[in-house]
Amino acid sequence: MNTFKVLEIKESVFADNNRQADLLRESLKKEKLFLLNLMSSPGAGKTTTLTRTIAALKDKLRIGVMEADIDSDVDAKTIASTGVKVIQLHTGGMCHLDADMTKQGLEGLGAEGLDLAILENVGNLVCPAEFDTGAIKNAMILSVPEGDDKPLKYPLMFEVCDVLLVNKIDAMAMFDFDMEACVARARKINPNIKVMPISAKTGEGMDAWTDWLYNAVTGFQKENG
Amino acid sequence: MNTFKVLEIKESVFADNNRQADLLRESLKKEKLFLLNLMSSPGAGKTTTLTRTIAALKDKLRIGVMEADIDSDVDAKTIASTGVKVIQLHTGGMCHLDADMTKQGLEGLGAEGLDLAILENVGNLVCPAEFDTGAIKNAMILSVPEGDDKPLKYPLMFEVCDVLLVNKIDAMAMFDFDMEACVARARKINPNIKVMPISAKTGEGMDAWTDWLYNAVTGFQKENG
Repeated sequence: MNTFKVLEIKESVFADNNRQADLLRESLKKEKLFLLNLMSSPGAGKTTTLTRTIAALKDKLRIGVMEADIDSDVDAKTIASTGVKVIQLHTGGMCHLDADMTKQGLEGLGAEGLDLAILENVGNLVCPAEFDTGAIKNAMILSVPEGDDKPLKYPLMFEVCDVLLVNKIDAMAMFDFDMEACVARARKINPNIKVMPISAKTGEGMDAWTDWLYNAVTGFQKENG
Repeated sequence: MNTFKVLEIKESVFADNNRQADLLRESLKKEKLFLLNLMSSPGAGKTTTLTRTIAALKDKLRIGVMEADIDSDVDAKTIASTGVKVIQLHTGGMCHLDADMTKQGLEGLGAEGLDLAILENVGNLVCPAEFDTGAIKNAMILSVPEGDDKPLKYPLMFEVCDVLLVNKIDAMAMFDFDMEACVARARKINPNIKVMPISAKTGEGMDAWTDWLYNAVTGFQKENG
């Protein structure tokens, strides 16, 4: 198994996170490094989705992953087994990452030479939505068991994301989840959000997502080439 | 249908939340009003669990509910249909309630004369764990689809709770969830945590929970009688 570092993230000293995020984004463009910020509730399936995403793209892109959690290193262990570069970030109780914390993570990971760095943010639909990490794109996972009303309750998260992955569609029959209502609620907040139903468990729908991500990364690299 | 108020909660001005929480708890004891703080991830089933809890206890206890959310009033609508007193609290983006915000909620609800007030906290396993609301007991719901590793990742939440309800056990066959491992992880953090597997959907296991809650409320009232 691959080994990985555990980094205790320091609280940021910068008052203006938006400024730090813009600076980080500028440097990512120079390095042609695409940073994806992946957010969700606890247990929506971020790590399983990432494992499949890596399997689909690791022969085409050089990928690194930052696993952010309050505690534990279970997710970094899982990702390490895919063979890509990974670091576990401990937030010391903090409920989100901001741009400076993300920068600490990229430095800890050793992101130079990568095409795609993925930040698996803390499982939380509230705080991570409020802090621009400097990512090129934001994606979120909503899982079917959580219910189709989540855009009503956590609107900012749906507003800041470019992509909404609706995960665990293999369990759809077990839960009262109205996909059409969910998408309509998300689009009312964010008309441009790209919605892709997936099952990270069975693989259903994953091609659409990994195609989108591959095209986003290579398009970004051309734009900044 | 019952009507309800929507209260926009104000951010607290008190620096010392623990002091405010102790003061609130003292006044709850004087009023013999049992306050339960119910926490979970988004979509773990707090509102459905409450609906069943109210159905089981509303002829024996005078119950009021505070529904806290960033936005929307869908949960208050659901609870209002049970016939108990309910108020929707909007946190204005805030990721948790503290003791002063809870006090605002109790005042808005009009809690005098109630035996049991239940605060449905913001769906979030991180921030609500950090703020004592002044509640007499804390309970959390972890749902089976979220996975058995959550005590490892969100230890403080498991540490501060008196009761862990493991919900959606009717969906157990669909998910890789090791109940024994989950309970062992929770107990390692909090040896006294009371664990009750439930399905708020089918009603399985709900009697154990509502019995516990009824005994907790009446025991508390005797102690402070």
